[in-house]
Amino acid sequence: MVTLEDPFTKLLGIRSESAAPGTARAWATLRPEHLNLHGIAHGGFLYALADTAFALAANSHDVPAVALATHMEYLAPGQPGAELEATAAEVHLGRSTGLYRIEVRSGANLIATFTGTVFRKQPKDESTKDAKSTK
Amino acid sequence: MVTLEDPFTKLLGIRSESAAPGTARAWATLRPEHLNLHGIAHGGFLYALADTAFALAANSHDVPAVALATHMEYLAPGQPGAELEATAAEVHLGRSTGLYRIEVRSGANLIATFTGTVFRKQPKDESTKDAKSTK
Amino acid sequence: MVTLEDPFTKLLGIRSESAAPGTARAWATLRPEHLNLHGIAHGGFLYALADTAFALAANSHDVPAVALATHMEYLAPGQPGAELEATAAEVHLGRSTGLYRIEVRSGANLIATFTGTVFRKQPKDESTKDAKSTK
Amino acid sequence: MVTLEDPFTKLLGIRSESAAPGTARAWATLRPEHLNLHGIAHGGFLYALADTAFALAANSHDVPAVALATHMEYLAPGQPGAELEATAAEVHLGRSTGLYRIEVRSGANLIATFTGTVFRKQPKDESTKDAKSTK
Repeated sequence: MVTLEDPFTKLLGIRSESAAPGTARAWATLRPEHLNLHGIAHGGFLYALADTAFALAANSHDVPAVALATHMEYLAPGQPGAELEATAAEVHLGRSTGLYRIEVRSGANLIATFTGTVFRKQPKDESTKDAKSTK
Repeated sequence: MVTLEDPFTKLLGIRSESAAPGTARAWATLRPEHLNLHGIAHGGFLYALADTAFALAANSHDVPAVALATHMEYLAPGQPGAELEATAAEVHLGRSTGLYRIEVRSGANLIATFTGTVFRKQPKDESTKDAKSTK
Repeated sequence: MVTLEDPFTKLLGIRSESAAPGTARAWATLRPEHLNLHGIAHGGFLYALADTAFALAANSHDVPAVALATHMEYLAPGQPGAELEATAAEVHLGRSTGLYRIEVRSGANLIATFTGTVFRKQPKDESTKDAKSTK
Repeated sequence: MVTLEDPFTKLLGIRSESAAPGTARAWATLRPEHLNLHGIAHGGFLYALADTAFALAANSHDVPAVALATHMEYLAPGQPGAELEATAAEVHLGRSTGLYRIEVRSGANLIATFTGTVFRKQPKDESTKDAKSTK
């Protein structure tokens, strides 16, 4: 079981774990400081939750992964006090890139979806590439 | 001059203002609690900064705007202590939707780009909604 | 069973059908005129295939749906002669918007993913629009 | 002046040119076979036009560039007979990735926007990386 706790997720009260390579989940209770002016979950908070599961899943292999592009769709509001959970699944794992899909739920209710593409920094780009030079 | 201060942006130390309809900017100093494990700006923090400028620009007209879909591209790291600024411009303003483009800079350096689509809740929609309240 | 045949899909040799509301599939054989300079499926062709399944799924309810924003990730090349298929699933159906996810496969191989958001033109909107016809 | 003519763009009647590295434009007349059932430009055709300018701009340097992720926003319909033009600008050019923004216009009217991220296949990944190993 791997987790990811950095200063920003700590500030936001987001916890996370990866039980298997390519997967991860992140969760948090929606507290007053996570809300926007309408009294519902701030879009930036929902993104941070999804992004945490994304980063943990993408870095669950032995290759550092850096986010290139992400997108998010907002489907329903997150209500104060709600227990939110983001689950990440690996859609594609290539040599240099990876694609992950994250769903953010409040109980059974899907409230946002997230897709993220990473660049994978292969430690041994040189020898590996030579070995695949026929490609 | 309009600003947007909600609990979440307050937690993150993000300030913002809109000097003209359809535009906005948001700014913050990159503090230790905004960093990820690599010691650079957390992707979720950069998103929150862009999202704040986006929300303020989209709501600078007399029609409430709700985020539908956003995407972000990460171009360069945000360094600790940096003064970050997100500026939002209106690409399109239709009756029911609007499109905004946000650039996040650290000084002159472009470090992330963001695009957001909103649904605009036209005031007259309410009567329509009432008429369909059985749905 | 509903299908969607318009001049553009006809030009591209794309066929499609929707067996149930919210779902659709589109398929085509990858012919020489669908290729790019590298001799593999043109990104625009893969998009057109996904977009066809998207449009058919989104319009499978009794409400006209118009594409607002889409995005596509390219995962693997489409080889000449391949039988390609795009399958669309409905992730979210709201009053004014809908979200669809499309996968493009060559046999069992996932070669591209697509996500699309639509604006749904509710029939009752017309009266609202009439009331605002001065705009 | 560089151009890009492949079987797919030829089928669609799309022409293109790149006058300077990192930039490109593509253009076409909207003909009957480019339309959808509503009698306006098919979303897939507008995408193909934008994608052509994107690919040409991204490959205007001496490094092969492969599309990773793209997204498109549809703002206004393309009318039959219209002269459409897509112009591509380079937002970011890194060692391994590049970001491009494309606008599709019908005369002065902005009808769609497109953003694309490429992976750049550095021919000399090995030696270059070694030379930069202090990074």
